[in-house]
Amino acid sequence: MRASQYFISTLKEAPSDAEVVSQKLMLRAGFIRKVAAGIYSYLPIGLRVIRKVEDIVREEMNRAGALELTMPLVQPAELWDETGRWEQMGAEMLRFKDRHQRDFALQPTSEEVVTDIARQELKSYRQLPKNFYQIQTKFRDERRPRFGVMRGREFTMKDAYSFDRDAAAAGRSYDAMYAAYCRIFDRLGLTYRAVAADTGAIGGDRSHEFQVIADTGEDAIVYCPGSAYAANIELAEALPLLATRAAPGKALEKTSTPGRTTCEEVAKLLGVPLATTVKSLVLATDDVDDAGKPAGVTVWLLLVRGDHELNEVKAGKLPGLKAGFRFATETEITERFGCKPGYLGPVGLNKAVKVVADRTVANMADFICGANEADFHLTGTNWGRDLPEPDLVADLRNVVEGDPSPDGMGRLAVQRGIEVGHVFYLGTKYSQSMNATFLDEDGKPKHFEMGCYGIGVTRILGAAIEQNHDARGIIWPDAIAPFRVVVCPVGWGKSEAVRDEAMKLYETLLAGGIDVILDDRDERPGVMFADWELIGVPHRVVIGDRGLKEGIAEYQGRRDAEAAKIPLAELAAFVGSKLQPAA
Amino acid sequence: MRASQYFISTLKEAPSDAEVVSQKLMLRAGFIRKVAAGIYSYLPIGLRVIRKVEDIVREEMNRAGALELTMPLVQPAELWDETGRWEQMGAEMLRFKDRHQRDFALQPTSEEVVTDIARQELKSYRQLPKNFYQIQTKFRDERRPRFGVMRGREFTMKDAYSFDRDAAAAGRSYDAMYAAYCRIFDRLGLTYRAVAADTGAIGGDRSHEFQVIADTGEDAIVYCPGSAYAANIELAEALPLLATRAAPGKALEKTSTPGRTTCEEVAKLLGVPLATTVKSLVLATDDVDDAGKPAGVTVWLLLVRGDHELNEVKAGKLPGLKAGFRFATETEITERFGCKPGYLGPVGLNKAVKVVADRTVANMADFICGANEADFHLTGTNWGRDLPEPDLVADLRNVVEGDPSPDGMGRLAVQRGIEVGHVFYLGTKYSQSMNATFLDEDGKPKHFEMGCYGIGVTRILGAAIEQNHDARGIIWPDAIAPFRVVVCPVGWGKSEAVRDEAMKLYETLLAGGIDVILDDRDERPGVMFADWELIGVPHRVVIGDRGLKEGIAEYQGRRDAEAAKIPLAELAAFVGSKLQPAA
Repeated sequence: MRASQYFISTLKEAPSDAEVVSQKLMLRAGFIRKVAAGIYSYLPIGLRVIRKVEDIVREEMNRAGALELTMPLVQPAELWDETGRWEQMGAEMLRFKDRHQRDFALQPTSEEVVTDIARQELKSYRQLPKNFYQIQTKFRDERRPRFGVMRGREFTMKDAYSFDRDAAAAGRSYDAMYAAYCRIFDRLGLTYRAVAADTGAIGGDRSHEFQVIADTGEDAIVYCPGSAYAANIELAEALPLLATRAAPGKALEKTSTPGRTTCEEVAKLLGVPLATTVKSLVLATDDVDDAGKPAGVTVWLLLVRGDHELNEVKAGKLPGLKAGFRFATETEITERFGCKPGYLGPVGLNKAVKVVADRTVANMADFICGANEADFHLTGTNWGRDLPEPDLVADLRNVVEGDPSPDGMGRLAVQRGIEVGHVFYLGTKYSQSMNATFLDEDGKPKHFEMGCYGIGVTRILGAAIEQNHDARGIIWPDAIAPFRVVVCPVGWGKSEAVRDEAMKLYETLLAGGIDVILDDRDERPGVMFADWELIGVPHRVVIGDRGLKEGIAEYQGRRDAEAAKIPLAELAAFVGSKLQPAA
Repeated sequence: MRASQYFISTLKEAPSDAEVVSQKLMLRAGFIRKVAAGIYSYLPIGLRVIRKVEDIVREEMNRAGALELTMPLVQPAELWDETGRWEQMGAEMLRFKDRHQRDFALQPTSEEVVTDIARQELKSYRQLPKNFYQIQTKFRDERRPRFGVMRGREFTMKDAYSFDRDAAAAGRSYDAMYAAYCRIFDRLGLTYRAVAADTGAIGGDRSHEFQVIADTGEDAIVYCPGSAYAANIELAEALPLLATRAAPGKALEKTSTPGRTTCEEVAKLLGVPLATTVKSLVLATDDVDDAGKPAGVTVWLLLVRGDHELNEVKAGKLPGLKAGFRFATETEITERFGCKPGYLGPVGLNKAVKVVADRTVANMADFICGANEADFHLTGTNWGRDLPEPDLVADLRNVVEGDPSPDGMGRLAVQRGIEVGHVFYLGTKYSQSMNATFLDEDGKPKHFEMGCYGIGVTRILGAAIEQNHDARGIIWPDAIAPFRVVVCPVGWGKSEAVRDEAMKLYETLLAGGIDVILDDRDERPGVMFADWELIGVPHRVVIGDRGLKEGIAEYQGRRDAEAAKIPLAELAAFVGSKLQPAA
């Protein structure tokens, strides 16, 4: 490609509403233009990156035996009614009526349509396994679209759905997708981690997120440097930090803590470590009787150490909280604790409050907690002596850096990540609700065992940039750079020697199948270099009269601090040697 | 590809709501499945064809210097308001509100968004010409979606938009697209015709439709076998069939024609040729005064020969009708003609009716027309003698087979076609309404001269099938066949020799870069052959034990009446020689 015939449109400054670095750089480098909140046009150079990502995804999906199809973007309500998701999906699913007043949605995902295809087309176990995928526009009407392509409303997703005879076969489909995803993210040239994730109501242990590592990531991911253990923060198990409970060493005392409503404030006032305090969180469940009628409210006191954080996903798995919980209202709290929030604790409660202690809290002695009296806390509190044992002991908290790894192989580390892929075992959730069956070898109808597998294609652009950039701009991995090599002639308009040498290199690289752009715009070197560093082309060759006199050109990798002088005769071969293996 | 690992899902019968042959065959061959009216999933084998079409379109667009980008499917009302099209577009444009009650539409086309990109990005004449295109999902909420992918609601379109300095440059962009379209449809292997089309309010002569020739086409297209003249029926000029007007030969007579309200009935009753009769059509225009207030109704009598048809597009170009017309109501007709419809004519009218005669009618003598009295017609009617000369003579009718070609090069022929592409010169319609300008060489802002260029990607599948099918199924052109060659082993499960020879051919063809499928499903020959004939693979090789004993296999082209016996040693080379040039 020659730049004069292409479309390069860089900006000195990003629009003021751009929030994160990838968004700013994509706007400045001319990859995207905003059309509405969370809705972008992809200019040619941005689309070029998307196509490279799509090609890698497609090749690896095909290699794994998946079959590409396309399901419609506009989907009828009837199918979504069958699974109950027409009602369950929130406002993220954009619903509308067509000219005949029939209900439709813009697809945020396609479980319903693909299950409908399977129940029509896959009649026999002989046709299984099957894995159907599409690479296609999706729409999610985010309440607050932001971060450019990272949380847009219209985006491109690869979504795949596997259909299997039984859970064991579904496991093999899952493993094949997991392996394909590893190949995809390897080929994309990104540093990533596959982490175990929560499976919610489906259960089982087959859910992994593929996270691109970046300090700016929204997700906290947990791993053990000494083992293969990796999980997202919602799932990562927190072992008790105290193996056993020490004997009481202090007397229970009521201490004045006026206006100190947080553990931090109390610890500071009393001059004690935060880890000697216990935090009280009050949840509520709305009970129903056997007939499904409201039957009062149960209040739950959850206790985590003062320096720990409640993990709501873990709380949601507790018996009694599984069906759904909420934070208690101030009225409910005052009624059960006789005290307003800020001074609550587990001592002196009647049976109307269920007390759940985190594993670490359950082994604490001489701890500090609220006194259930405004402006007072208790110190020297001890289980058994000052209050009954908790009703339940459970893992309630987020792990923190340095916690022991659940596999006993060392201590956990925490990183930030950007979720770009997810593999998920669905079981028979959709095949049961849509009555999608096949005839098994025994002649009996069975529900398909399903899995779903997503990759956020456009989001990968943002994640790649969050991971790979510097003050000058983007640093694309070779495999998804809009161009792998840029040839920058200095003095294109003036020097025939420069033009000849630049054209020669350009044509040699092109002939070698290398995706190269020749900057024949006749811009000053400063403008050229700034543009290509912003755009993030990984390899640059500069050809100028001064170098030609010495018989050299300059090569500089986008991450290199300095340029290397390369004899002209070796130039094309040298550039070839610098390229990462062709994707 | 091996069929056992692919997804072949053919049906014996098409669903009963399928109307046209392409729709029936695409459903039966497993290319599409209906999800809602006019909304389809593309199964893997159908998507395969779409991808081949897209690839050819993309390659030729790129070759012509156009740049691919992607504009959003969900577009904000604000941009459409700028051109007035938010109001003007009919119910085909699906409009909805997002969760924040802002107005959006699903894009049926993208002039507004691309013009917005141009006014932001193209600041200088130095950046021109530019041609941006996308290959993307479109949505048009057709009142009556039908004919499968031919008139669907969700479909894939390639839409391109050119931006130029002036009309001359825009003409060059137009010509480049016209040439690219010819290359595209040539490569697709379709019989097509580029026909001049009406330019509506834009004017000028730069609008061509690309029509795939098929007897089942919705459009009538007109061409001159002796020259390059070709136009759609709306535009094709009808010359007068009578060079001069003969002198009156008969007296004017009022003839009883009880209950005969059509020219056909009158001609039959009177035993005269239909071409001696004149058909009366009454239109009305709602006049407005200088202040834009309603100012009465003008009634127009349009006359075409009894065997001709009124062309409403041509009528809409008449002075006085340009601003819009409608058919007159029965009340308006009775008021002006003193007679109900069925017996109307141009004789004895007062000045309140404007009479427009088709060029042929204006030269007729002794013609028959309504007497403006129920159950009566006039015979022997003559201009000048029996009634004043018409207020206006114009081309008002559709041409018919055998009419003289407007270029004087012979007689016109009429074919049916399916519109699959359109190139259109837009002028400054959009750049003016959106104030999209660039700085020209003289330092002054100028409005872009634009063109737009569409190709109905998914519709091409339907058109190709309407043009190429037989009783057994589809006959794909090589370039867009889902597979170019199918290898059918007879007795795959039983005969090792068959398996070996089939695998050998399959692998040889694959290694030669030929898109081949091996039918290793171990089906009976009848089932295999019926499937592949239905699916429309253009080249088939059958390998069976009987042939192997003679050292031959059978080759049959999809259009061939009989199979040819080919020695095994020559098989791969023979198949290669049969393939149409690689696309």
